[in-house]
Parts: sequence; structure tokens; C-alpha cells
Amino acid sequence: MLPEENTVISLKSNGLKIAVAESCTGGLISKRITDVPGASDVFDMGIVSYANAIKNRFLGVPEEILNTVGAVSEETAAAMAKGVCEAANADIGVSTTGIAGPGGGTKEKPVGLVYISVYFKNGKQTVKKLLLCGTREEIREETATTVFETVLSELPRSGKDA
Amino acid sequence: MLPEENTVISLKSNGLKIAVAESCTGGLISKRITDVPGASDVFDMGIVSYANAIKNRFLGVPEEILNTVGAVSEETAAAMAKGVCEAANADIGVSTTGIAGPGGGTKEKPVGLVYISVYFKNGKQTVKKLLLCGTREEIREETATTVFETVLSELPRSGKDA
Repeated sequence: MLPEENTVISLKSNGLKIAVAESCTGGLISKRITDVPGASDVFDMGIVSYANAIKNRFLGVPEEILNTVGAVSEETAAAMAKGVCEAANADIGVSTTGIAGPGGGTKEKPVGLVYISVYFKNGKQTVKKLLLCGTREEIREETATTVFETVLSELPRSGKDA
Repeated sequence: MLPEENTVISLKSNGLKIAVAESCTGGLISKRITDVPGASDVFDMGIVSYANAIKNRFLGVPEEILNTVGAVSEETAAAMAKGVCEAANADIGVSTTGIAGPGGGTKEKPVGLVYISVYFKNGKQTVKKLLLCGTREEIREETATTVFETVLSELPRSGKDA
């Protein structure tokens, strides 16, 4: 079973809703969630915030963060996940921000550097730094898969999840 | 060349930005735009508004429309496209709303019924009703492709577009 199918089933069995804020994955996570029939039981909203101005206006990522550590950072990933969770009035918010390539990499922030975050509305939050290899498509798919696996690892399991 | 590649190239050569509001395609259009390296030149924001409350709060779709003709309607598609164009401060807004299946169809609104809209900030707007056959995946992909083709048909062509 695909990780997005497991995620939808597990969210549903736990009565939880997820919201998605994407930069480098550009809609892929929302797309993979809604590939699953019945996703509307657990998913109300995704925001693809490709520009910094959108991260600030719609997700509440502080300008100071964007102007200092930048969009591809632990701090931005954390603020995006919390921001989308609150904006959608969801139980869980997830986020991605990184360099999918093939251009855009620097010595400090190379292609394949991605930050993801999973935020629970009770305040519990995980942020992960990933260093991925591969094509633009592979980096984006692997980022999305890691988000689903991280969510799954933090959800209580029930008999329905198997 | 894929229609999303042609769309990104044509938007770039015309100096235009596109914003995306998706219901039934669930992020697929934003995903396909951002599959193209350099998409950030023409794309700042996508909103996946899977729930009616999100269509109302983030895209300004009037509650009267959602409560009368419903989310899968010409009126909702039109309001979503205009709403996301204005929210993102873009030049073009596109939208999708429909029944991708396999469940959710009725006699009046069967699986495969989809409305799409393309809104230009000068006020020009196209709304199309589609009746598509196929699997959930096929209906979603065909919807996205039709959106790209509709945008392309309304953009001035330049030598770079070929």
C-alpha cells in the first residue's frame, strides 16, 4: 500500500484532518493525498507557497526569517507547518521547503537540501533536514514520501491501518 | 513538449504570472506547473480548496453559490479562478471543480462532470463544462491538460513558444 493511502486511512481512523503547505514539492503532496478516493474526509486545504510573499501573507512565516536564514531553512519549514495547520483549522500541518533543482543550488544550500515539518495542533512539532540525491522528480517524490512516513510514525496505529 | 512546459514558456515570454485554485484536481495542476524547472518565474501560489469552507474563506466563493448551485458548478469555477487571481496578485487565475470519482456522483452531477475556468485580471473569463470518462486518475489528468490547453489558446504566441 502506498504511504499516502496508509496516511489517509490512519488519519481517518484517528479522526484527524491534515493541511499541507508546500514549496519545493509544489502541490505533489496534496496531489498524492487526493489521489486516494475519500481523501476529503481528512483533507480540506493545501497551499502551494512558491513565492516568499505567499509564505508570509498566507502562512504567517515572519519576514525576518525569510530575510535572514531564508526560505530553505528549519525555521521556515516549522513556521509553514504551524501556519497552514492554523489557517485550515486542521489537526496536523505539514510543510516542505528545499532546492529540487536542477538549478538554484549554492555551496551552502545545494540541490537536494530539503526541510520538512510536521506540526500537531497540541504544539508537538518535528522538523527534519534531508539531503537527497537524484533528479528534480526524484527529489520531490522522495520528499513527499518522507512527509507521509513521518506523519505515519507519529500517529497512533489501529487495526484498520495494517 | 508537454502542455505544462508550453504553458510555463508562454507565460514567461508574455511576462505573466498564473495562480491556481483546485478542487477535484487536488494539487495536480500546481504539481505539473512546478514539474517544469524555472516555474517560479511564472507561478507564486496555488490553493487546493477541497472543502467548501476553504473555497469561501480563501477564494471568496459566495456562500449563496455553494448553498444553491453547489461546489460543482459554473458559478463556483468562475468565482474560484477570479478569487485566486486576486489573492495571489497574479495576471491569470485558473480553477477546477468536479466529480473525479469513483464515488460522489449523482444523476444530476455524475462522475466525470468537471467545470474549469480561466480568468484574466483584465476581466476576460472563460468557463468550460467537461464530461470526462475514465478512472479518477484519468479524469484528473485530462482536466489538468484541458486547463493548460485553454490557457495556451488564450495567450499571444511568440517565437519562443514553438
